[in-house]
Amino acid sequence: MTTMQSVYRSRRERVAEFIKSKGIAAVRFEDFEEARSPSVRYLCGHPGDAFLVIGADASSVLVPWDENMANKMASVDKILPYTSFGRRSESAMRSVLEIMNVPKGARVEFPESMSYPSYIEHVAALDDWDLVCEKGGTDTEVLAMRSVKDEVELEIYERASGLTNSLIAQLEDLVTSGGLKTELDVALFIEKEARAHGAERTGFETIAAGPGRSFGIHAFPSYGNGPIGTKGLSILDFGIVIEGYTSDVTMSFARGPLSPEQATMVDLVQAAYELGASACKPGVPAKDIAQAIDNFFAKSGFSMPHALGHGIGLEAHEAPGVNLRQENKAVLVPGNIITLEPGLYHPEFGGVRLENDVLITETGCRVLTNSKIVML
Amino acid sequence: MTTMQSVYRSRRERVAEFIKSKGIAAVRFEDFEEARSPSVRYLCGHPGDAFLVIGADASSVLVPWDENMANKMASVDKILPYTSFGRRSESAMRSVLEIMNVPKGARVEFPESMSYPSYIEHVAALDDWDLVCEKGGTDTEVLAMRSVKDEVELEIYERASGLTNSLIAQLEDLVTSGGLKTELDVALFIEKEARAHGAERTGFETIAAGPGRSFGIHAFPSYGNGPIGTKGLSILDFGIVIEGYTSDVTMSFARGPLSPEQATMVDLVQAAYELGASACKPGVPAKDIAQAIDNFFAKSGFSMPHALGHGIGLEAHEAPGVNLRQENKAVLVPGNIITLEPGLYHPEFGGVRLENDVLITETGCRVLTNSKIVML
Repeated sequence: MTTMQSVYRSRRERVAEFIKSKGIAAVRFEDFEEARSPSVRYLCGHPGDAFLVIGADASSVLVPWDENMANKMASVDKILPYTSFGRRSESAMRSVLEIMNVPKGARVEFPESMSYPSYIEHVAALDDWDLVCEKGGTDTEVLAMRSVKDEVELEIYERASGLTNSLIAQLEDLVTSGGLKTELDVALFIEKEARAHGAERTGFETIAAGPGRSFGIHAFPSYGNGPIGTKGLSILDFGIVIEGYTSDVTMSFARGPLSPEQATMVDLVQAAYELGASACKPGVPAKDIAQAIDNFFAKSGFSMPHALGHGIGLEAHEAPGVNLRQENKAVLVPGNIITLEPGLYHPEFGGVRLENDVLITETGCRVLTNSKIVML
Repeated sequence: MTTMQSVYRSRRERVAEFIKSKGIAAVRFEDFEEARSPSVRYLCGHPGDAFLVIGADASSVLVPWDENMANKMASVDKILPYTSFGRRSESAMRSVLEIMNVPKGARVEFPESMSYPSYIEHVAALDDWDLVCEKGGTDTEVLAMRSVKDEVELEIYERASGLTNSLIAQLEDLVTSGGLKTELDVALFIEKEARAHGAERTGFETIAAGPGRSFGIHAFPSYGNGPIGTKGLSILDFGIVIEGYTSDVTMSFARGPLSPEQATMVDLVQAAYELGASACKPGVPAKDIAQAIDNFFAKSGFSMPHALGHGIGLEAHEAPGVNLRQENKAVLVPGNIITLEPGLYHPEFGGVRLENDVLITETGCRVLTNSKIVML
């Protein structure tokens, strides 16, 4: 705990330096049902349902929904239960700013995710201060911090990858042998094995889609009682969470005889994955990798309806983005952990996707996970 | 399908009437990772990752992330894949408004959940129209529509409650007999039985907390590998989803000998639940019921750190709120389905909560689910 306390403190000190440089006196982060942000957890260890305010002097106040939980989990200077303000955000925030001695007139930043009507209400209610809410502010800075994993986080990812790889190997064996036959079997196997081996949870709802449903990028429902690994193309997309950090991998199962179209899709996705992995190194714009894969598919007359990948961490999707969006300026740096997940989908032939987690290193990259397209 | 198509259409017609009465030409709903709203599903059947625009003439355009999925699931006039706009919201919205012939200068409403910075960008990019984003707008109107279940929804809730009650009975037997011993056992039993019997998914991450962890309102992690139903107080909070609609129940397990404090907590929660259920009928302000329970606990020197209940439906938490918040003006009406979930928590003695789903009827209420505090 002492170690993590100092880790949280040093992260908050970086935030304090950043806001000081921007002339901001205090910044608020929040993680509630309306807008989840694990930056709260990243900065103090509290797992959710709270807002956190950090001052330019690195002081910190947490306003949690569950006081008992905060007393056990949060490493902050002060805890003020939200219920003591009747869960009224404006009055809680006023008390926090007064306790922190944030001078009247000073700039106070709100989360970028805050809704327009709610922000307008806060501006009116907290008119003693100069409120700010914008893209590219401190939220974004913390996402940038989170996108470069530190030693503590890299050690967690070794464990997360190890458990993920153990599951991948077992899943390959069990789907091949017929030990796991249905989407439900496979999804519950993951849930059980992950939790039994120390995972906090799965990173997102496991997607297990047999040949009849793999046409969907994210099958709906995410898994059902139908078969998986039968003739055609099946997709299995899952992640496991260790101490808040998720892995994110997709296996595909291809059982022949495949149609020529299916065989082509499998070959193209495999080749695209290898092309992507070979391009991952520091200094490369993430968008260029996405563009290379897009071009590769286009040459064969195919197109991928989703991003090539994304950063992972305390969220299943975080910075850096590995996509073609106009605003994507991310350049890979050592410590990024990204997914590469080329996939192709067809309403009749089904879908195939291959996804692994890739750590950017000083000299190139290391693929952390062993997911594959399993030919049955 | 024909029936659901006409149900979606008539819901959209109600939305169209509402916006027409407000002088609004088109309204946008959205359900993306940043801000989930199953109103999209409620209004067209598409399960997520899309925005939907409805015009004052009840015309509708869906902009989905997954075109294949939309072609199978969505009942709308037109589908425009988001990828064809590079997932740029402003340009997609411009095309939709042009296709719908929304006149320049007309009012166009955006979701209340839209972030402040994003809304400001849309205002700048779509300056041919008069944009609106406010609390109490069409989002709120649709939440009000959703809070009164129609015949289709009541029929779904009969099935959801039936399956939930079957699980409750089995869980009581299996925890009592020792057939399910750990949090993991119990949570996976629910996941498996629910999906095997037609549930789309569980309504939220099941919370299974043995005596060492039941002090948390929402235990963290939500379930682990520890024991449940052992000496002291355990909490099991779960919901199952049928066609998008979730149940939400909490069982508690109390294994003696209990400490005097634990026994008092159990008795108070049971009595509070009965008091709450006896107060549920049309015309009653939901806040009054929450206040009665608050007063009841206060007489014994206890206080409950969370709301007494909430509406359920396509979301686990929706209107009407059954809480003490200043802004809560909800008055119960027939067709509301709410939870009642009194609970008490102590850092050492643990927690106890009893939660059932209650349908408000013409004459009073009907408790749909059979959850209980099981004395072991």
